[in-house]
Amino acid sequence: MSRILIDAMGGDNAPGSVVEGAVLAKKSEKIESELVLIGNPEKLKPFKSEMEKHGIEFQEAEDEFGMDEKPSKVLRRKESSLYKGAEIVKNGEADAFISAGNTGGLLAVSTFVIGRIKGVPRPAIATPIPSIRGFTTFLDSGANLDCKLENYLSFARMGIALKRTEGVKNPKVGILNVGAEKDKGTEIIKQAHNLLTEKLAEQFIGFVEGRDITLGDVDVVVTDGWSGNIALKSMEGVAKLIMKMLKESIMSGGVLSKMGAVLLKSTFDDLKRKMDSRNTGGGYIIGVNSPALKAHGNSDDVAIYNAIRVAEEGIRYKIVERIRNAVN
Amino acid sequence: MSRILIDAMGGDNAPGSVVEGAVLAKKSEKIESELVLIGNPEKLKPFKSEMEKHGIEFQEAEDEFGMDEKPSKVLRRKESSLYKGAEIVKNGEADAFISAGNTGGLLAVSTFVIGRIKGVPRPAIATPIPSIRGFTTFLDSGANLDCKLENYLSFARMGIALKRTEGVKNPKVGILNVGAEKDKGTEIIKQAHNLLTEKLAEQFIGFVEGRDITLGDVDVVVTDGWSGNIALKSMEGVAKLIMKMLKESIMSGGVLSKMGAVLLKSTFDDLKRKMDSRNTGGGYIIGVNSPALKAHGNSDDVAIYNAIRVAEEGIRYKIVERIRNAVN
Repeated sequence: MSRILIDAMGGDNAPGSVVEGAVLAKKSEKIESELVLIGNPEKLKPFKSEMEKHGIEFQEAEDEFGMDEKPSKVLRRKESSLYKGAEIVKNGEADAFISAGNTGGLLAVSTFVIGRIKGVPRPAIATPIPSIRGFTTFLDSGANLDCKLENYLSFARMGIALKRTEGVKNPKVGILNVGAEKDKGTEIIKQAHNLLTEKLAEQFIGFVEGRDITLGDVDVVVTDGWSGNIALKSMEGVAKLIMKMLKESIMSGGVLSKMGAVLLKSTFDDLKRKMDSRNTGGGYIIGVNSPALKAHGNSDDVAIYNAIRVAEEGIRYKIVERIRNAVN
Repeated sequence: MSRILIDAMGGDNAPGSVVEGAVLAKKSEKIESELVLIGNPEKLKPFKSEMEKHGIEFQEAEDEFGMDEKPSKVLRRKESSLYKGAEIVKNGEADAFISAGNTGGLLAVSTFVIGRIKGVPRPAIATPIPSIRGFTTFLDSGANLDCKLENYLSFARMGIALKRTEGVKNPKVGILNVGAEKDKGTEIIKQAHNLLTEKLAEQFIGFVEGRDITLGDVDVVVTDGWSGNIALKSMEGVAKLIMKMLKESIMSGGVLSKMGAVLLKSTFDDLKRKMDSRNTGGGYIIGVNSPALKAHGNSDDVAIYNAIRVAEEGIRYKIVERIRNAVN
């Protein structure tokens, strides 16, 4: 039986939504893991009986690390739920860690407390992005603003390993660039192209452009955390814009238009589900010695439930072992 | 009477779509300018009578610069429609230049033949991006992969000047970053934050994230051409994905679903129109001595028509003069 540890204090709606998400998971037949919440005992008091009722365990951590605090500071905040949580995972008392809290903070404790996998120069955040064929594994979504040549290769190998756990046997990898031609882009990107061509052979399909992330002809897209974060959030913004425009146009469109929306309910529900980042559970901090998952800062219960689901898959499919094999 | 010169050989559908776009403009009451097409006489022969019929002038250029050629080479291709076109504009024989051809090539001839505006360290590509409130002026969309500190200030000033021609009196400017907090991002971005705070005062609202581009609380978003191009194309990809998903879901949804789509036709048409890059006409090469417009590579007649409309607005609203004043 695997154990998943969840930072009860992380996220805009913590601890309520975190508790509710854990309850959802406990009620679901799909989730088998034991769940442990870590956080401030005072703040979790109101939820104590509900947690007990659903068999959710509890670990105390007096301190909480804020969403907007400088990430590096977390390493001196040893009583925070983030730091203590990572320690528990490191000591083998839990098999995976989830937080909807400070991204940089989670990255720091994952890297320095849980620890980097040997052979991984720098962990990255890997995010599933909806595409025409399913999902594209996109990394780095923001862990490393500046990347060295070796990072691109390691991101590619980790991305391939992760994608394989989803049943894609021979994932195709591309490097994000401003054009598909070999002579386009920055110096480091051109060097990365050469390196990946040499090391990955036919798994590497070359440069891809921003629109290829969602077009689905590539399984893994690697980039530096700077471009990655900007691309990710720009894409989120467009999805929001379109949803909002659809809604406003329908609301202002009279009775026939509202009838049309009713008839298309399942279409809109499908679309919402696919574009809803709550359903992907968040992004893996990939390259560390345990599955560590960053749930969205604004996670509600459904998002936390899905993060638990993804973390359990990470344990079941042995993503850490796979990545260890892929990079060494 | 202003004269607009259009590269007849630029774009995936040239010269046919370029001629058709010019004809559309000539038929429209909105466009007053004289139109001149420049290109290969042999290839334009089949369109000669139609051009004459609509009073579209013609300039010969024997050579054409390919979509995938290395941009810097255009400066030695003095008989190409791109180079010769830029020369004609530089000599004052036309007031604006449009091409749907090689972006880097157009940038090169705009910069080195038409010429940089004094005080602009480097021209940029400014693209209008749909937002909840209208359009956000986004630059640089890909002209300068690497940016120096001075570029950010000049992009901001040019963006403000451009946005004012659209009737926004006090455009708000943000710098694209991975977070809104002042201590986030790369070194140069933090320096740019200080510089813009000092030079632009309350017009500068600080860092913005990718999703803010479409949310509409900022009028001008500045970034380096690397992130800009990646963000732009990533956003295009999401818009395409959503449109495709909507279409497929409706088509596979049975009679009721198709009825729903009919009732929502005006909603879908609105959405398509807003997301359709053909309707914005393309991006300005901003910071050069004449309005120069890069139309999408896959422009059809409507896209070319709109590029002509935007170029005419650029002449009418004296964007070059405004930018000259803004940067000096």
